[in-house]
Amino acid sequence: MKFVRFGPPGRERPGCIDAEGRLRSLASYLPDISREYLDPDRLSRLKSIDPRELPIVTSSERLGPCLADVGKLVCVGLNYADHAEEAGMTAPAEPILFMKPTSSIAGPDDDLRLPRGATKGDWEVELGVVIGLGGKYIEEAEAMAHVAGYCMVNDISERCYQLEGTGQWLKGKSADGFGPIGPWLVTADEIADPHALTMRLDVNGWRAQDGTSGSMIFRIPFLISYISRFMSLAPGDIIATGTPAGVGMGQKPPVYLKPGDVMELEIEGLGRQRQRVLAWDGAGAGA
Amino acid sequence: MKFVRFGPPGRERPGCIDAEGRLRSLASYLPDISREYLDPDRLSRLKSIDPRELPIVTSSERLGPCLADVGKLVCVGLNYADHAEEAGMTAPAEPILFMKPTSSIAGPDDDLRLPRGATKGDWEVELGVVIGLGGKYIEEAEAMAHVAGYCMVNDISERCYQLEGTGQWLKGKSADGFGPIGPWLVTADEIADPHALTMRLDVNGWRAQDGTSGSMIFRIPFLISYISRFMSLAPGDIIATGTPAGVGMGQKPPVYLKPGDVMELEIEGLGRQRQRVLAWDGAGAGA
Repeated sequence: MKFVRFGPPGRERPGCIDAEGRLRSLASYLPDISREYLDPDRLSRLKSIDPRELPIVTSSERLGPCLADVGKLVCVGLNYADHAEEAGMTAPAEPILFMKPTSSIAGPDDDLRLPRGATKGDWEVELGVVIGLGGKYIEEAEAMAHVAGYCMVNDISERCYQLEGTGQWLKGKSADGFGPIGPWLVTADEIADPHALTMRLDVNGWRAQDGTSGSMIFRIPFLISYISRFMSLAPGDIIATGTPAGVGMGQKPPVYLKPGDVMELEIEGLGRQRQRVLAWDGAGAGA
Repeated sequence: MKFVRFGPPGRERPGCIDAEGRLRSLASYLPDISREYLDPDRLSRLKSIDPRELPIVTSSERLGPCLADVGKLVCVGLNYADHAEEAGMTAPAEPILFMKPTSSIAGPDDDLRLPRGATKGDWEVELGVVIGLGGKYIEEAEAMAHVAGYCMVNDISERCYQLEGTGQWLKGKSADGFGPIGPWLVTADEIADPHALTMRLDVNGWRAQDGTSGSMIFRIPFLISYISRFMSLAPGDIIATGTPAGVGMGQKPPVYLKPGDVMELEIEGLGRQRQRVLAWDGAGAGA
């Protein structure tokens, strides 16, 4: 099943995409696409719904983040050898982990407003793994049973804040809008092999990233097991598994986002994202 | 007002501490101490309740984390010059920021179960600032109006995972139980000067940390303003503002937590925490 959330920010309703690509409402079955519906039993009951029996949503609705209440967004750094190389770093011996705050999460097609003073905005198309069954010290052999589904993540960064300031990567990964997720949360049964998905990202129609999830250094079962050594995973957590080569920082010379740019992302089976880039608008506290 | 949450993990109820230190139930006023009650208007109405009119909770109840649904737990690294020195690092020119996942949050007196293979568990008593009014690009002069109150945080670390592995600090800051908060969420009106609070942490009765919040390098209004440049702050976010000297890593020779140890923490006006340290019990996935 392909879950979506549609409607204005903060007031999204649950839906799904039918076999013909039409948006259908799930509002009579659940109040929202949220973590408590991701456990294997409840998910199994939801998957038994025939989308053809659900009301079609006719209006042209905004799509929101595909999950309402992400618990934590854990990201894997430099998980594709070609991206590590372009970043001027060696492929890590163990996964590099960092987090984006859930306040950075946005809808798949929401405008990206660059933060004040941003000069090095950058893109990263990533396969997101949505946890359905929590745990810690999860065995690699059991890890896939903890996956509810998959979604696309654009792990947007401001490289200046990430790499040129003081300390950790967090500062450059955290602005509002830096974490578009969706459009769909696709249940695991619909993705035959999550390590064989084409991934691409275009900037203004120019193909910047063109890779496959098969090029990950550390694969999904290992990542789930590895991360669960350091923190417990819970339903509704998302693991962003890293990006292939082709980010702006890796171009020669580097290319960074500027107002007016358009990013278009696609991962095979997970739909498409499209973000227009806007300049900072000057709104301050409480905005 | 001193808010508390009491009851078994995941089923805590709201309460407050009266002038005589007795626990009173707030269950007739709100379902839980949660972020939507922290905005200035609702908080003001809650503060007008006379604790003497609330039912006394007579049983010896466990205290839970003092806030139900922390949005994000943003931490400031090396924010006391004496701690930066003992850590062998120079005091930073700008605040170092990192996050702990909210899954690390625990009650103030919950047992700390060391993660599997931990050899360098360490303590950090910290003043936590609880956001009541959200915003971004908050001006330093306006910052204190965004504070709902304060709570104590023990920013527990596994130094081996934090510093000796690959990449970011996250791995060593994130285990379940590594973020006890509370016992009280004390509203800002009860803390005359948050930069003049004594802070101490004892391990097995030995005074390890003995400092004051007045020794922060970067003070609370600046920290709120600074963090809000990189991410929006929302009601229910907590900023852990750093720790003074005396962590285990800073002892000569270093001293780390072992099963059987007891940590006791106190910050003036914010109550006391007490955590017994237990060995890893071997429970795996789903535990």
